[in-house]
Amino acid sequence: MPAKVLIASYLEPEHVERIRAEVPGVEVVYRPDLIGVPRFQADHTAPMQRTPEQEAEWRELLAGAEILFDFDHTHREDLPAIAPKLRWIQATSAGIGQAVKRYGYDGTGWRFTTASGVHARPLAEYCLMAMLMFIKNFPLMDAQKRDRHWQRFNNTELRGMTVGIVGLGRIGRDIAQVCKTFDMRVLACRRSEASPPSTVDEQFAPERLDELLPQADFVVLCAPHTPETDGLLSAERIRLMKVGAVLINIARGALVDHAALKRALRDGHLGGAALDVTDPEPLPPDDPLWHMPNVIISHHSASTADTENGKLTALFIRNLQRYLKGEPLENQLDIDRMY
Amino acid sequence: MPAKVLIASYLEPEHVERIRAEVPGVEVVYRPDLIGVPRFQADHTAPMQRTPEQEAEWRELLAGAEILFDFDHTHREDLPAIAPKLRWIQATSAGIGQAVKRYGYDGTGWRFTTASGVHARPLAEYCLMAMLMFIKNFPLMDAQKRDRHWQRFNNTELRGMTVGIVGLGRIGRDIAQVCKTFDMRVLACRRSEASPPSTVDEQFAPERLDELLPQADFVVLCAPHTPETDGLLSAERIRLMKVGAVLINIARGALVDHAALKRALRDGHLGGAALDVTDPEPLPPDDPLWHMPNVIISHHSASTADTENGKLTALFIRNLQRYLKGEPLENQLDIDRMY
Repeated sequence: MPAKVLIASYLEPEHVERIRAEVPGVEVVYRPDLIGVPRFQADHTAPMQRTPEQEAEWRELLAGAEILFDFDHTHREDLPAIAPKLRWIQATSAGIGQAVKRYGYDGTGWRFTTASGVHARPLAEYCLMAMLMFIKNFPLMDAQKRDRHWQRFNNTELRGMTVGIVGLGRIGRDIAQVCKTFDMRVLACRRSEASPPSTVDEQFAPERLDELLPQADFVVLCAPHTPETDGLLSAERIRLMKVGAVLINIARGALVDHAALKRALRDGHLGGAALDVTDPEPLPPDDPLWHMPNVIISHHSASTADTENGKLTALFIRNLQRYLKGEPLENQLDIDRMY
Repeated sequence: MPAKVLIASYLEPEHVERIRAEVPGVEVVYRPDLIGVPRFQADHTAPMQRTPEQEAEWRELLAGAEILFDFDHTHREDLPAIAPKLRWIQATSAGIGQAVKRYGYDGTGWRFTTASGVHARPLAEYCLMAMLMFIKNFPLMDAQKRDRHWQRFNNTELRGMTVGIVGLGRIGRDIAQVCKTFDMRVLACRRSEASPPSTVDEQFAPERLDELLPQADFVVLCAPHTPETDGLLSAERIRLMKVGAVLINIARGALVDHAALKRALRDGHLGGAALDVTDPEPLPPDDPLWHMPNVIISHHSASTADTENGKLTALFIRNLQRYLKGEPLENQLDIDRMY
């Protein structure tokens, strides 16, 4: 009997067909009527309300599934009870370590593969956009536009500026490469002791983070959220950053002390921030960050690109082929390390 | 007697000292008290009010000058009469062809060297910022920020998108290189018949511009303002552009039919515009462009970087050395071609 694959979040029909065509050894079940309607392209957390009949049908599909494409957000904590044959979940996100622990999946014996790499390019582009918007003085451009006031001003270029990348996974390496293209000095903080890629000028072990921070014009957080990185950018560390430096957070809000961040943005210690993620998230309507002109907020959408499902499908196909051959899977989550 | 060089707009004292140190064969006159106080770094058009005594002193300096660093904006039309010994003006801008004609300098026999190349990198960065802001949906991010409303959305990446670069000088070539880094398809329209650089996928002669326009997701104008390029992007040509395409103008406002541009931005034919230059310029307070959310206005400041005077000084030093040896100057303006 071929292994049953259940697609648990919306995927364009052509991608489903591609999986079926390229991996004939599995049975791919895709029931768009039983999963949420995407609110935007590559929406993998669309809400779903099922009728009792639909819910029964969905549970039956889960009961038979060996492989899930994406987490089932309608059954988080009870999934192990409902899906006894499950062996592997291919996630659509790179940062899933916390969720796997939170949903209690760490004792199931399931394998998890992340979407690491899929979002690297869109995120590197987002970081570059944010860096350019700050050095080109976009907040001033925009204020003058609102005032309908034409006044020339001075800005700068990236050449010779320093970026400090915290976390040198697929995303961090893509950012390093982009920054090097613009002749920036690239510092990176990394847990692994592997030798740095050629795009990194100096590599810092995590215990040397405090040496990196005072040197960077831009600090980019792209490390996974783990117990070690929780609260990593504390009030003390924010004060170690250069006066006028810009923080870019594309990791998780929990890496940053948000009260201290707001103080530093208000008192001018930091020049600005680009926050794709916040704490809490969604950001509540009364949060002062909404009103700060030197803050870019991107609603956890910096990684969401219309190219995403195509890349996820290609990754999933490669992994299905490896799975069937009993080979190691690409991007397998290390549950202890949490990434 | 050493040739007299008069610095006609503000330059940091260390740059003046560098010229003196590296080109001992000239006499460099720098009188910051007689020229305008810069309103921002690298401001080369700062206004100046002189007392009668100061004015007399300035005219005496002009009377003896053989070489000017920058145009003297306090004496435009009457400069030929006041500066009989003048032989060469090193400009601080790349686009000076129209000004040379307008001030009536084309019959003087003077040589002019442009700042071509000095602003290429900052302008390429600005173009990239604008492209990223549109593909990352910054107008939506910002609208949601104003509404304090956290809502995820979809965006895209540059890979595979097409840029059409009109004018392939130093700036255009830098833009092509940056776009190629992001795996874009690069089309360029160019008067020269030289073979295209490797970063350009297809090169179009000016008479084939109408073939380029319908293919480009972004059209970047970076051609000089000449009689041939005046009104180049006419109403008809704007209609040839892709629906949803973005116009980036870092050339001169006069290249574009602004009435047609506004119509196309309003009726949705164009997705947006990033305008460093406008027509008229400065943009009057009642111009509808100020109110369009899909328009970035950068107040003719995209090229103004704090790195500018250092680069201008290096160029001027190279040219002084060539001048003294009787060698051809770098960036010499072709008065007929106007660039």
